[in-house]
Amino acid sequence: MWPALQNDTFLRACLRQPTTHTPVWLMRQAGRYLPEYKATRVKAGNSFMGLATNVQYATEVTLQPLDRYPLDAAILFSDILTVPDAMGLGLSFGAGEGPKFAHPVRDEDAVARLDCFDLDQLRYVFDAVTSIRKALNGRVPLIGFSGSPWTLGCYMVEGGGSDDYRLVKTLLYSRPDLMHRILAINARAVTTYLNAQIDAGAQAVMIFDSWGGVLADGAFQRFSLDYTRQVVAGLKREKDGQTVPVLVFTKGGGPWLDEIASCGADVVGLDWTVNLADARRRVGSRVALQGNLDPNVLFAPPEVVAQEGRAVLDSFGRPQRADGGWDGHIFNLGHGISQYTPPEHVTALVEAVHAHSRQQRA
Amino acid sequence: MWPALQNDTFLRACLRQPTTHTPVWLMRQAGRYLPEYKATRVKAGNSFMGLATNVQYATEVTLQPLDRYPLDAAILFSDILTVPDAMGLGLSFGAGEGPKFAHPVRDEDAVARLDCFDLDQLRYVFDAVTSIRKALNGRVPLIGFSGSPWTLGCYMVEGGGSDDYRLVKTLLYSRPDLMHRILAINARAVTTYLNAQIDAGAQAVMIFDSWGGVLADGAFQRFSLDYTRQVVAGLKREKDGQTVPVLVFTKGGGPWLDEIASCGADVVGLDWTVNLADARRRVGSRVALQGNLDPNVLFAPPEVVAQEGRAVLDSFGRPQRADGGWDGHIFNLGHGISQYTPPEHVTALVEAVHAHSRQQRA
Repeated sequence: MWPALQNDTFLRACLRQPTTHTPVWLMRQAGRYLPEYKATRVKAGNSFMGLATNVQYATEVTLQPLDRYPLDAAILFSDILTVPDAMGLGLSFGAGEGPKFAHPVRDEDAVARLDCFDLDQLRYVFDAVTSIRKALNGRVPLIGFSGSPWTLGCYMVEGGGSDDYRLVKTLLYSRPDLMHRILAINARAVTTYLNAQIDAGAQAVMIFDSWGGVLADGAFQRFSLDYTRQVVAGLKREKDGQTVPVLVFTKGGGPWLDEIASCGADVVGLDWTVNLADARRRVGSRVALQGNLDPNVLFAPPEVVAQEGRAVLDSFGRPQRADGGWDGHIFNLGHGISQYTPPEHVTALVEAVHAHSRQQRA
Repeated sequence: MWPALQNDTFLRACLRQPTTHTPVWLMRQAGRYLPEYKATRVKAGNSFMGLATNVQYATEVTLQPLDRYPLDAAILFSDILTVPDAMGLGLSFGAGEGPKFAHPVRDEDAVARLDCFDLDQLRYVFDAVTSIRKALNGRVPLIGFSGSPWTLGCYMVEGGGSDDYRLVKTLLYSRPDLMHRILAINARAVTTYLNAQIDAGAQAVMIFDSWGGVLADGAFQRFSLDYTRQVVAGLKREKDGQTVPVLVFTKGGGPWLDEIASCGADVVGLDWTVNLADARRRVGSRVALQGNLDPNVLFAPPEVVAQEGRAVLDSFGRPQRADGGWDGHIFNLGHGISQYTPPEHVTALVEAVHAHSRQQRA
């Protein structure tokens, strides 16, 4: 059905299999730092959702970074908030602002209305997945994704971004029963959503727990990780005879690395506060690790970018262990790439990662 | 010279000595959640710096939370950015905005001008310390404070708050020599500043590394912790025959707990992502720990506030160890109290901490 995969390095690293180099892709690699992205966005009425809901444009922008850089994976162009939008919360993006929901969820009635989740409303996402997979024509694998139940819940209760998470934490501590109902609904919806992406052609799926790190120890386990685990347990792990790896990334999740590594995912994403060597020692025999360059490094001159990229590889060390087995490392940033990044600095980074990781294996 | 201290529980806990209960104070305990604070602020022309630079007002607001709650320590009312202001950067607070510097530091010339730091310009701070110490009349000890060299440096380069730290990290990665010069100047200034607070009457001093947690592993050690260590090494540790404890708080510093605990401070502050039991196991025999309730818990009903407060105490455990010795715990939030906090919820918290920690010792 699909063209044969020509570069399976990313999938192999996810599954802790031997690789010739360390695969690299960048969170938010299709984005505003690329002039060609901005040009497509203008065609889409200068609207983020205009891009994401149009199959042709979503395909176009997903492939743009691959045409510029020899990246080892593509990631679906979409937003983490499509699921609550399909629950009727009314997602919008104001000019120069973050996402907003017209109907935030803060009481029993609003929670009761959530169960109307309609997968058909997300048809545009699955159509985009299939279109991108075809357009990739086997160059690299395609990653699908969703926000985690907790991260979606944050936005649903706050009605948008927040710098203190006061509303969602007030609900969590005052009405934990209600918070758990929201999260249970989200977990079912995210599971269905990601499985539909896998059916449509996604070759790996990633769960972004962007706001897990704002929770207190104890609350993180009960309100974020438990629901991520439910999602992971419900995912299809094989499609067309190929394993579909699952990646979980909790921004600020360093304190809970051991517990996150036990959630059932194949890969754990790390931000730049985590020491990669230490993380590998602790959980590298159970999961592959993804990360973890500070995206702000990309503002330094290209030679510094290359040097810092090599330092991340050296911190992980040679993926092949002394006993001959392999651990897995996927090079990435510890957060999405900034819109102000000079595109040519990304060239320096990807080149350095490929060259240095080949040397590490020599 | 000074009246005898009637409640030394805070100082004893800092030094890991036996205590009858776990002392409690709250970061930003004198602040906008208190109606009496707002009333004083109106008298001061509704200006934060109007409050901080007026000895009488600064004394008044520092004592307000102590009149409401049986807290075990007072903390100087001031701002972490007074030091760069005294370097001529022009600090201001716009209405409803965070701090801004009129003259951010982003090149060689601006760095060269920093060495004009004039301690006399901070006379208002030392006068406030002495005035507050007198007004306390021995009720509880007075904590002085400063921002850490790195945290000051962040604001100095960014020119204010930031959500991505792009400018300061660009400087750090592009011109590490310049960043180090700024930090060395800051470390000397902060040392002088805190020693002058100790001379003026501060009985403990705290270094707020509010933005240490945004740094990458490796960069944190070189650009934040190394300079905090320099400050700690230069502080007077005894005054009038009493030990002056040093507290260091790195928001988001959980990944580097062991290294922070070796910086020479007596107390390490922790945010709510850190598991207190685990932190005590790792470093509790070397330093006392301060923290770590999520300030958002205070939006829950008072009985939940009390329960979560007890859970923090239970997580640390009884301060007296099985071998008869004592570890130290100071109860606090993991960040400043929110301006939206209902004041009566703080009553419930302080009562619960005092009552439950006495029971723990029974």
